[in-house]
Amino acid sequence: MAVGSDTFPATMHPVAGFRLGVASAGIKKPGRRDVVLMEIAPGSTVAGVFTLNAFCAAPVQVCKRHLQTHISRYLLTNTGNANAGTGAQGLDDAQRCISAVAQLCDVAAEEVLPFSTGVIGEPLPVDKILAVLGDAKADLKEDNWTLAAEGILTTDTRLKGSSVQLEINGQTVTLTGISKGSGMIQPNMATMLGYVATDAKIAQPALQTLLSSATQRSFNRITVDSDTSTNDSCILAATGASGVEISSEADLAQFSAALDQLMIELAHAIIRDGEGATKFVAIEVEKAAAQQEALDVAFTVAHSPLVKTALFASDANWGRILAAVGRAGVDQLDIDALQIYLDDVCIVENGGRALSYTEEAGAAVMAQQDIRIRIVLNRGDVNEIVWTTDLSHDYVTINADYRS
Amino acid sequence: MAVGSDTFPATMHPVAGFRLGVASAGIKKPGRRDVVLMEIAPGSTVAGVFTLNAFCAAPVQVCKRHLQTHISRYLLTNTGNANAGTGAQGLDDAQRCISAVAQLCDVAAEEVLPFSTGVIGEPLPVDKILAVLGDAKADLKEDNWTLAAEGILTTDTRLKGSSVQLEINGQTVTLTGISKGSGMIQPNMATMLGYVATDAKIAQPALQTLLSSATQRSFNRITVDSDTSTNDSCILAATGASGVEISSEADLAQFSAALDQLMIELAHAIIRDGEGATKFVAIEVEKAAAQQEALDVAFTVAHSPLVKTALFASDANWGRILAAVGRAGVDQLDIDALQIYLDDVCIVENGGRALSYTEEAGAAVMAQQDIRIRIVLNRGDVNEIVWTTDLSHDYVTINADYRS
Repeated sequence: MAVGSDTFPATMHPVAGFRLGVASAGIKKPGRRDVVLMEIAPGSTVAGVFTLNAFCAAPVQVCKRHLQTHISRYLLTNTGNANAGTGAQGLDDAQRCISAVAQLCDVAAEEVLPFSTGVIGEPLPVDKILAVLGDAKADLKEDNWTLAAEGILTTDTRLKGSSVQLEINGQTVTLTGISKGSGMIQPNMATMLGYVATDAKIAQPALQTLLSSATQRSFNRITVDSDTSTNDSCILAATGASGVEISSEADLAQFSAALDQLMIELAHAIIRDGEGATKFVAIEVEKAAAQQEALDVAFTVAHSPLVKTALFASDANWGRILAAVGRAGVDQLDIDALQIYLDDVCIVENGGRALSYTEEAGAAVMAQQDIRIRIVLNRGDVNEIVWTTDLSHDYVTINADYRS
Repeated sequence: MAVGSDTFPATMHPVAGFRLGVASAGIKKPGRRDVVLMEIAPGSTVAGVFTLNAFCAAPVQVCKRHLQTHISRYLLTNTGNANAGTGAQGLDDAQRCISAVAQLCDVAAEEVLPFSTGVIGEPLPVDKILAVLGDAKADLKEDNWTLAAEGILTTDTRLKGSSVQLEINGQTVTLTGISKGSGMIQPNMATMLGYVATDAKIAQPALQTLLSSATQRSFNRITVDSDTSTNDSCILAATGASGVEISSEADLAQFSAALDQLMIELAHAIIRDGEGATKFVAIEVEKAAAQQEALDVAFTVAHSPLVKTALFASDANWGRILAAVGRAGVDQLDIDALQIYLDDVCIVENGGRALSYTEEAGAAVMAQQDIRIRIVLNRGDVNEIVWTTDLSHDYVTINADYRS
């Protein structure tokens, strides 16, 4: 199940200097594309953001270490096994995989980053992965984003990608990215596997700032089930192959806006493909006194099982939204001063049901696949937005009927 | 659905000086017992704890005000309508109900406390309630706890009660209580309606301390769905009719232990009857550095939809427990130092799956209806325990298929 029409772009613009190769190692299912190798041309810059879960997976620990000392040249991803909760053995296994890539591609092991996604707590089937590294390397090409988007999926039902070209100082810059994720989604740093590449030339510190800032506005603003993954990782590589250098404040701002938009599209694709999702819900908190209180309110509503089941039922049960706002921990919240809207229908004002509200108007909004819940706190001038799904029978089925 | 066998006691000991009466106002369903009046003898002391949800219902606002200035003589409860999110009209409606009780029973309105539970955001049907106050008053008797336990239920499928007698200085003291609640359950002060009475004689400040302390160990340690209600209220009345005065430290300690036990039983009854529950799960966090971090870990695990669906599936998917512990926000958590157990089966140690662990041993525990998840942090000497349910298809059905 997924919400609305497929948003994967018809055209995924290749990024000069960034090649992708796919192979089938049979980690979980025979024949499934489950190993993806990405190659970043020499002279590029690379930035990364990773999960803040204390139980971060072995590959995440390796990525963070390598990014501090080396510019990455290869990204190796496997699905079907998260290599998380695997202790010292997991670190050894990740090391064996990237050492093999390093040898095959003639780079240092520290120039390779490992990524894993799938079941937690089982030993990584290293030999299966090593056996197909040659296939993945032989498959490397710039025009391979769509197959790579398929190769990184697990319980996802759709490919997730976004691709834009923009003019900076009269020259064309390309930005293309893919992501995966469907359950265990409340990214707290970045979501479970996102890869974005550009042919712009951007210095590393600026690149990291751009990625961190875009992550805050995209992956860190979505939640399916409040469960932050052990493996969340997002990488941004800038190959510079376009010859367009981005360093002035104006150029950075223009690029930043395009990157934000691309990463928001990747994040939205994850929500639309959220486990069991039948609704795509934007929760907009306006006029908060501080960013944290806006996020607290938005995420409390987004995580409320009662709000989520009402969304699944298309039931304008606004009392549940109100109860969630009330328990969000906002200091000295004046319930008489706030308003709550479903799209443009005011449902709550003056501490109770809005006088203008009718069940028919509320039901009409709730019947939609795309719904905006707008909460105007009237305490300050901070706005935040979080995207989420409903809670359906299929979510329970997906997560109760098999080991994911 | 409910977990395990019914725990409602065969004998609910009457409490001298505390009478209960029940009536049918037809608020939501014709013929259903939905109005309960309780009478507290003159000379009693009364304590209360209430929801911390900022959107606290009109009756909760009235209760808090009246308890500050008067010793309550009557408690009026209606089900089928929460009188929450009802603004100024809600306060007027609550006032009309208690004024009618005051007139009927010849006390001041400030000596009456109102309680409402049911759907949020609809006007209280005051006239229906006023019409049956005479019936409820005529029904008042000390031996009426079981009918009252029925009269306060909403989506509950079972009566919830507990009753004990203890010897203090050679004299018998009785403690009897009832509660209700099944969904919108993460009490943050007390749960949606609990009433406890004793015939001991206890001064008001001590009574409030006893109630607050027992609430911390019982209702504030349970969660079904993380949704703190707008109407949570719990009242403890001490009539003194036994003639046993409790004021010495030793007597208070003995009484406190009995009260804790009684309120824990009432809280457990709510979890066993949690919406859609098929499992009763105790989450024990041991050797934490501080109480808050112990509770953060316990509630994060208790609220994780992925842990809850694995519990529903009886799937020993320990990776989900580990991921939840990892995102609980514990500062500088050393994942290599902690252990996680299912009952007495060690599942996680040294940052990964325990060497001694077998799927069979884990599966055997998960197949039980009662399950203990024990998380030993090895950071200090603080222990906490939280009780919760699984997340089943029935939870979604109950909350998606009709307006509750």
